[in-house]
Amino acid sequence: MNAPIAVRAPLAVRYAGARTLDVAPGSSEAPGPGEVQLAPEYVGICGTDLHIFHGDMDARVKTPAVIGHEMAGRVVQVGPEVEGWQPGDLVTVIPLRWDGTCPACRKGHQHVCQQLDFIGIDSPGAMQQRWTVPASTLVRLPEGMPLDHAALVEPTAVAVHDVGRAGVQAGERVVVVGGGPVGVLIALVARAQGAEVRVVELSEHRRKLAAELGLAVWNPATEDVPELVRQWTGDAGADVAFEVSGAANGVETAIEVLAVRGRLCLVAIHPSPRVVNLHRFFWRELTLVGARLYDRGDFERAVELLADATIPAAALITGTVPLARAQEAFEALEAGGNVMKILVDCTGTDEESAA
Amino acid sequence: MNAPIAVRAPLAVRYAGARTLDVAPGSSEAPGPGEVQLAPEYVGICGTDLHIFHGDMDARVKTPAVIGHEMAGRVVQVGPEVEGWQPGDLVTVIPLRWDGTCPACRKGHQHVCQQLDFIGIDSPGAMQQRWTVPASTLVRLPEGMPLDHAALVEPTAVAVHDVGRAGVQAGERVVVVGGGPVGVLIALVARAQGAEVRVVELSEHRRKLAAELGLAVWNPATEDVPELVRQWTGDAGADVAFEVSGAANGVETAIEVLAVRGRLCLVAIHPSPRVVNLHRFFWRELTLVGARLYDRGDFERAVELLADATIPAAALITGTVPLARAQEAFEALEAGGNVMKILVDCTGTDEESAA
Ligand SMILES: [Zn+2]
Ligand SMILES: [Zn+2]
Repeated sequence: MNAPIAVRAPLAVRYAGARTLDVAPGSSEAPGPGEVQLAPEYVGICGTDLHIFHGDMDARVKTPAVIGHEMAGRVVQVGPEVEGWQPGDLVTVIPLRWDGTCPACRKGHQHVCQQLDFIGIDSPGAMQQRWTVPASTLVRLPEGMPLDHAALVEPTAVAVHDVGRAGVQAGERVVVVGGGPVGVLIALVARAQGAEVRVVELSEHRRKLAAELGLAVWNPATEDVPELVRQWTGDAGADVAFEVSGAANGVETAIEVLAVRGRLCLVAIHPSPRVVNLHRFFWRELTLVGARLYDRGDFERAVELLADATIPAAALITGTVPLARAQEAFEALEAGGNVMKILVDCTGTDEESAA
Repeated sequence: MNAPIAVRAPLAVRYAGARTLDVAPGSSEAPGPGEVQLAPEYVGICGTDLHIFHGDMDARVKTPAVIGHEMAGRVVQVGPEVEGWQPGDLVTVIPLRWDGTCPACRKGHQHVCQQLDFIGIDSPGAMQQRWTVPASTLVRLPEGMPLDHAALVEPTAVAVHDVGRAGVQAGERVVVVGGGPVGVLIALVARAQGAEVRVVELSEHRRKLAAELGLAVWNPATEDVPELVRQWTGDAGADVAFEVSGAANGVETAIEVLAVRGRLCLVAIHPSPRVVNLHRFFWRELTLVGARLYDRGDFERAVELLADATIPAAALITGTVPLARAQEAFEALEAGGNVMKILVDCTGTDEESAA
C-alpha cells in the first residue's frame, strides 16, 4: 500500500470565470466529523466541466470554484466518527449530497434529490491535491487498480445506470446514438450485459475508436440508419436505443429505429425542447426513460467492470496533463477534434505542478 | 336466456364518404369454420368512428364500410369447428385480428401487430344487425348484464390497458389530462385501483359529469394546474399523468405535474409531432409509455368493472339512437357540445330501423 505523496502546499485548479482556470493554493484543513481527506491522483474532464469552463453555468457556479468530479485517489486523513477507512486506501467518490428530506429522497430516489448538491459543481470538486469529502461518498477501489483507470469509474457508473434504466437484457439489440465517452461506455456496458450493439456517430475519429473497441459503428451522415436497423433486426427494430448525442436528429433517429415496445433511454442533455413524434410512442407502445447520474450500486458495478478490464480504460484515455496545465486540456477539449477522455494528474509536487 | 330478435333482412350502417352514412341491407351469410354470427344490440360511437365520418381516414377505409367496434350483443349462429359458444350467449368482441408472424406478434405483443386488422376500420364492423366474426375474438358477458352497459366494455378495456401500462398502484396520485369518455374511464379505473385522481378538462359539461361521478376536476383555463398539483402532493408532483387530451398544451401539463420518477402514459393520438421538454425527462428521471388498444385480460377486467358497477355505465351514456338514425348521432358528436357516449341501438326490426 503506497502512502499518498506528501505535499507542502496543496494546489487546486479553480474556475475563475469564462474560459479561465487558475492554479492556487487549495484547502488543507483537517477533516471534520464524518469526513475524510483525500489526495486525488487523477481527475477526468467531462462535458459538464466544459460547460462550466465555457461560462454556461455561471448562474450556478460561484467563482473561484474548484471543479471536477471524475476522480480516483487515496485516503490521507480520517476525521472523527469515521469507521472503516484508513490512510492509503484507494477510493473514488460518488459526488452527490442529498438532503434526505425532499419528496424524491423520501421515495428512495436520493440521487435525484430535489435539492441535490453535486460535488464539483455546487460545492468544491476534485481537481486539487487535497480534497475533503463526507466518508459516506467513498467507494473502495481494489488494491492494485491503476488510479488513472479508476478515474473512469464515475462516467462508467453513468453508463451502468443508463443501461439499468433501459433494462437491457442479454440478446437484445441496442442502438447507441452518439459515440462520445458516455456513448461508448454505454455500448461497452450493454455489450457486457450480453446485448448486440450498434453505435451511431458522426465523428470519424470517434467511429474509429469505437471500432477499435470491437463495436459496430454507423455514420448517420452517409448511411440510412433506420434502414440498416430494419435489415439487422429482420424488420423488427431495436429493443433499446440510447440518445446520447444531444442533437435534435439524434432524438428522431433513436425513436425511428425502435421495435414495438422498444425502450428509448434519454441520457443526453437537451437544453431546449425537442419536436418528438409522439404518435410513434402511441402506435408502437414505446417507452422513454430519463436517466440521470447513478447510485452506489452503479458505482460498485462500474468498479468491477473497470477492474476486470471489461471496460478497457487505457483505450479510452486520450491523454493526461499535469494539474498546472489543466487550462490547456480544457482548451483542447473545447476545440473538439480527436479527443476522448483527458485526465488531470494531481500527483505532482507543488513545485512541479506550478512549473 | 333470450333468443336474438329475428330479422328478415338485416340492416347495416355504412360509411359512404365524408359526412355520409347510409343504411343498407347487410350481410347475412352463415358463419364459416371458426366463425360466429352475432346480433349486435348496442354499438358505441368513438373518436375513431368520428374521424372516419369526417373523411380523415379515407386512405385506409374502403367505402362503403360498415364501421363500429364498441359493441355488445348475442350469438345467433355458430360456425363449424367452434366450441364453447351457443346461440343466445351474451358477448362482446375484441376487434383485433393479428397475423401471428410479424416481429411484434412473435414477441407476444399481438395487440400491436405490425399488420393489425382492426375490425370496424380495416374490415367490416359492428354497426349492423348481423355480424360475423372469428370465435377467437369473443368475450363472454355475464348473464343479466345490460347490453347497453356492455357496449362500454371496449372503451373500458382501453382504460384498463392504459392504467396497466402506467403501472398505477394503490395510494398513488394520478392526473388525467382530458376528461372525455376515455379520460373519465381512466380516472374511474385508476380510482378503482386505489389511486387518488384529479381530472383536468376544459369543457364545463365534461367537468360537471366527472364531478357527478365523484371525481375531482380542475379547469386548466382558469386554474394553475401545476401549482395545484404541488399543493396537493406536498411539492412532490404526481406519480402518474395520463395525456388523453390530444392537445399540445396537454402534453406540457402532463409533463410539468410529474414527480421525480413519475410516469406519463400517452393515450391520445397526436397526429403531428409535439414540442417536448426532454430535459425534464432527464432531470426528474421521468418515464413516458405509449398505450394503444388492449388484450384479452384488459377486456375481462373491463367486463368485471362494468358488471359490478365500479364503472357506472348509465351515467356515461348520453343517449341511444336507433340504427336508422346513426347519421344524426354522428352529427351531434361532430358538433361537440354536451355529449359523452352515444350508442346505436341495432335491435329494431328492419321496418322500424328504416323508418
Ligand atoms: Zn432530497
Ligand atoms: Zn403481427
